[in-house]
Amino acid sequence: MSSIQNSIRMIDVGAKPVSLRTARASGRLVARAETIRRIRAGELEKGDAIATARLAGIMAAKKTSDVIPLCHPLPLDAVEITIGFEPEAVAIEAVVRATARTGVEMEALVAVSAAALAIYDMCKSIDPGMSITAVQLEEKTGGMRGDYTRAGGPDSRPSR
Amino acid sequence: MSSIQNSIRMIDVGAKPVSLRTARASGRLVARAETIRRIRAGELEKGDAIATARLAGIMAAKKTSDVIPLCHPLPLDAVEITIGFEPEAVAIEAVVRATARTGVEMEALVAVSAAALAIYDMCKSIDPGMSITAVQLEEKTGGMRGDYTRAGGPDSRPSR
Amino acid sequence: MSSIQNSIRMIDVGAKPVSLRTARASGRLVARAETIRRIRAGELEKGDAIATARLAGIMAAKKTSDVIPLCHPLPLDAVEITIGFEPEAVAIEAVVRATARTGVEMEALVAVSAAALAIYDMCKSIDPGMSITAVQLEEKTGGMRGDYTRAGGPDSRPSR
Amino acid sequence: MSSIQNSIRMIDVGAKPVSLRTARASGRLVARAETIRRIRAGELEKGDAIATARLAGIMAAKKTSDVIPLCHPLPLDAVEITIGFEPEAVAIEAVVRATARTGVEMEALVAVSAAALAIYDMCKSIDPGMSITAVQLEEKTGGMRGDYTRAGGPDSRPSR
Amino acid sequence: MSSIQNSIRMIDVGAKPVSLRTARASGRLVARAETIRRIRAGELEKGDAIATARLAGIMAAKKTSDVIPLCHPLPLDAVEITIGFEPEAVAIEAVVRATARTGVEMEALVAVSAAALAIYDMCKSIDPGMSITAVQLEEKTGGMRGDYTRAGGPDSRPSR
Amino acid sequence: MSSIQNSIRMIDVGAKPVSLRTARASGRLVARAETIRRIRAGELEKGDAIATARLAGIMAAKKTSDVIPLCHPLPLDAVEITIGFEPEAVAIEAVVRATARTGVEMEALVAVSAAALAIYDMCKSIDPGMSITAVQLEEKTGGMRGDYTRAGGPDSRPSR
Repeated sequence: MSSIQNSIRMIDVGAKPVSLRTARASGRLVARAETIRRIRAGELEKGDAIATARLAGIMAAKKTSDVIPLCHPLPLDAVEITIGFEPEAVAIEAVVRATARTGVEMEALVAVSAAALAIYDMCKSIDPGMSITAVQLEEKTGGMRGDYTRAGGPDSRPSR
Repeated sequence: MSSIQNSIRMIDVGAKPVSLRTARASGRLVARAETIRRIRAGELEKGDAIATARLAGIMAAKKTSDVIPLCHPLPLDAVEITIGFEPEAVAIEAVVRATARTGVEMEALVAVSAAALAIYDMCKSIDPGMSITAVQLEEKTGGMRGDYTRAGGPDSRPSR
Repeated sequence: MSSIQNSIRMIDVGAKPVSLRTARASGRLVARAETIRRIRAGELEKGDAIATARLAGIMAAKKTSDVIPLCHPLPLDAVEITIGFEPEAVAIEAVVRATARTGVEMEALVAVSAAALAIYDMCKSIDPGMSITAVQLEEKTGGMRGDYTRAGGPDSRPSR
Repeated sequence: MSSIQNSIRMIDVGAKPVSLRTARASGRLVARAETIRRIRAGELEKGDAIATARLAGIMAAKKTSDVIPLCHPLPLDAVEITIGFEPEAVAIEAVVRATARTGVEMEALVAVSAAALAIYDMCKSIDPGMSITAVQLEEKTGGMRGDYTRAGGPDSRPSR
Repeated sequence: MSSIQNSIRMIDVGAKPVSLRTARASGRLVARAETIRRIRAGELEKGDAIATARLAGIMAAKKTSDVIPLCHPLPLDAVEITIGFEPEAVAIEAVVRATARTGVEMEALVAVSAAALAIYDMCKSIDPGMSITAVQLEEKTGGMRGDYTRAGGPDSRPSR
Repeated sequence: MSSIQNSIRMIDVGAKPVSLRTARASGRLVARAETIRRIRAGELEKGDAIATARLAGIMAAKKTSDVIPLCHPLPLDAVEITIGFEPEAVAIEAVVRATARTGVEMEALVAVSAAALAIYDMCKSIDPGMSITAVQLEEKTGGMRGDYTRAGGPDSRPSR
């Protein structure tokens, strides 16, 4: 009972001040060129993958504390999902903002993951080999540990 | 209203027979060597990342139809999460089984994503540059479209 | 990607001040006179429809951001459901209050809808032709766009 | 304790055979003509209301047993949302199918309500006086009580 | 990684036959006599504790796989909550039935716990010293391990 | 409609000031000595019961307003679960903190109940006669009604 290994816990954020927190995360769904073409042309059996991915990302961000065991439930101010295309990939970015005692990195990462998974779901019958890669934090602001910008981060933003 | 683009829908699986479905998915959380060492040694402020990741993966698999908009709700027979370590990565694998009218690929992929995100959450204060990569389907069995094995799949399994 | 049509998003409320918000919504479940009589007499196979409707409304108000894709998750101060009877209708009213950055209209409308649907569920075996009508916002207060009162609103309140 | 009034309960469906169940429900969101024009033109601040309403309806159908207290949790085979337009209304229809021991009327009605509420949410800043009306069951098939078709039902279907 | 300690997993029930499963659980909320009197007389600030407890129990049974990490999601056939009174206690019983590959003990125990907690919530301002005791399985039927009846079980049933 | 009995409602907390609230609750899972031994030795078929119970408790605390019908949704600052052992019992304690308009007693009690139920679930195949007892509030601080300490409370804390 006394080892650090076992004592899983939600960190106490009560002493932290409420402040504006933002986080931007990104990720990529790598797919065949024909799959990308069909997503863009709206030629999928299940329908509009872009709208579905956006809504999946927004709704998942709101569920973060339900999916990630040690995350605090937070009221979110904004969630925005940007989706761009490359010849063989969908580039996904999520920006989350909250006025809270703790950061929103996980909300942004969960949003990117859910958006990518939602597109995977809509294309899996034609391209089961797709892969979700480089789901990562690009930058965050607010909080006492200071801001964070990923080395080389700005360059990796999807073209909008 | 008439374009394919807009008609988002949940596919009708009512005519498919109930059969045993399995899916195995994998993914990687790339981190600094020191982060991996601390996960393995149980030296994280939030506690045991391996147990937390396993439970996050299992519980997220059960929430798949709540997170992925067009997934069917399914009773699951089994969810198993395997976690292995490389010098600079955590390798995660999820196996899901169900006796159902549709496959469980999404459940396995959601489980891997949630497990990876849960570890990210527990290490983000010491290593915010971690990245989740190669979240992908390794194999699936059951259903009318036949089985699927990822090219080169078996080699990518984490050592247990 | 650039059209307004596609860019679904949760509006940023971070710049709005926190203030007291209230909303009152109403709706009607139109049913046969005999159905109304049985609801009031407590003669339904599934039991007490009034208590069930109240709890369904309160619990649904708390789930609003989970059901309505672009709603912000809000801490609610109060939810109150009033249920009245007419010869061939149940009149439902919900009042919701929160100290928040955005309004609670959706919470009140979701509460009315869920309460009406819960009664429908309990009576559907004896009166499947029931209809839910006039689910609408009666008034709201708080926020920067000013208060709102539905034209003719006060008259439409259910007798308590 | 002994009165019918108090004994709220989920009906036992264990003795009913598993069979194909379908339900079709409809409803209307009455709005100003200018609001309808902006929904159709994709000129809303929050984005594409049609895609959002479809997804809100599908996702809410899956949550029915969580929102309606006495509904049984059911695996659904299919959910389809159709949205049509009139000069001053959005017409919404939901078709739900399941292979189950009990009917899916509530799933279809919840889907219609959630879709209407999602559109309300996206238009409320420009037209708070909108009203949701005539949320009702159009037809159902399957089960031991026989099929049901609403008197005059077919005429009320939205033009697709 | 190889120790039994760490390998948390959801047991595979795929090889078990689908059969009728029932479970009955009970529990007690011990309270002051005056608290019991007020519950029975309907004199609580938050309203009808009996109806609320019944609905809390039914709805929680449906959420069991969401609350208990390693429980399988199950379609339930029936949930019934019985509430009885003693001079200084509320006696709660839950009966759950399902046609499934695994038992419903946890659903019944979760229902009893949630019903007791819901009453606690409604009385806590007048009697914070209440205690929930003897939450236990009374009997179960179905499944390959055979039926179970608690020693002395029948005597502990609340008077209805 | 006018009786207190029927008017179930969520109390309005809007006029209460936001302040730091804490609650500590405890409970016991009584089991056979051999069951306790196997929990401690990590010899359970489903795996590590201690980690699972901790996570079940933390995650359930976050779901309190979803499980207890009249609870307000609250942002939580911290949840901590302590688990101790006696020869024939597991002693569970939960401490919850929030900066909120209402107390967190229910969150602490829900956490204790879920942790106990999670352990029950993991041991039920070897010891179905286990019983959850003495789930009760030990102390709370904050709020306008003043602090509360259970008579004899400190003695009942589990040894850590």
